Amino acid sequence: MKETILSTTRAYDGRLLKVDVLDVALASGQRSTREVVQHPGAAVILAQLGDGRFVFVRQYRAAIGRETLEVVAGTLHPGEDPVACAHRELREESGYTARDLERLGTVLPAPGYTTERLHTFFARLNPTQQALATDIDEHVQVEYLTAAQIDAHIADGKIEDAKTLAAWMLYLARQHRDRRLVPGS
Amino acid sequence: MKETILSTTRAYDGRLLKVDVLDVALASGQRSTREVVQHPGAAVILAQLGDGRFVFVRQYRAAIGRETLEVVAGTLHPGEDPVACAHRELREESGYTARDLERLGTVLPAPGYTTERLHTFFARLNPTQQALATDIDEHVQVEYLTAAQIDAHIADGKIEDAKTLAAWMLYLARQHRDRRLVPGS
Repeated sequence: MKETILSTTRAYDGRLLKVDVLDVALASGQRSTREVVQHPGAAVILAQLGDGRFVFVRQYRAAIGRETLEVVAGTLHPGEDPVACAHRELREESGYTARDLERLGTVLPAPGYTTERLHTFFARLNPTQQALATDIDEHVQVEYLTAAQIDAHIADGKIEDAKTLAAWMLYLARQHRDRRLVPGS
Repeated sequence: MKETILSTTRAYDGRLLKVDVLDVALASGQRSTREVVQHPGAAVILAQLGDGRFVFVRQYRAAIGRETLEVVAGTLHPGEDPVACAHRELREESGYTARDLERLGTVLPAPGYTTERLHTFFARLNPTQQALATDIDEHVQVEYLTAAQIDAHIADGKIEDAKTLAAWMLYLARQHRDRRLVPGS
């Protein structure tokens, strides 16, 4: 079902968003066009404190006109390694540093129209919180949720962000796998 | 933390994608711009056959240059109700019709830069499959997965699509809730 890209035209070149129009040949031989948002990718971090609580950020999202409750995440700088990005975003958005960082997997937020890949991590945090260092036009508020509160907020619709739902799904899958690896559990 | 939109400029007006640049006043009084993909929204359907298996579609995604394994989903037509869209997409992409459709919740695939909302449903299917009726430039292949296979494909990274991970998370949350409602379980 592979499609062959015949040509690519940069149709919009904005501050953050770039849109390319791809002229493609389908497997059937027919031609079509695909509009694609070119995105550098992002790191997503489900971060846990020593007391078991998870770190969330509440922030206003202009695209949907209200606040969301999300895990820590941020866009890769040019050439930045996802692990370095995860450490940087944790520091900037939550004020915490990671004691260790574990890959949970890659998530595609909208493979129909964006190249964005979310490099998703689980972080165990050091206890000391520094001041946040968010961008001048980025205002986030740190909140702490237990696993039971996360489950409740997913069930009652207070957590709607796909990367947060996906990170929690991958974390639960990892826990399930780890439990199976412990003999007798 | 609310931001006030001072003006909106349509910066790209493509076949499917529209990009607006919003001039916003932050809560601090500062000005900034937000680039936003205007999207009509979509219906996402986790569909189950009477034998317990779930219906997935495999399709080539030009944005990421390879095939993905996803639940059935599709963009709302202008003015279309999400429930009507869910029934239509099920028919077109899987060939099945829904015996009943239950809301699982709303998911935001990328609230940082798109208005898209995913209206997510769980469908119990009628057993008879008709021919698919996909768009001329859309080629999908129907696959059937058990719950255990879905869990395995999430753990091994074969399911990376955020709406699919989110729909499965919402379905598991619903099952957990239903179990708690049954006395003695």
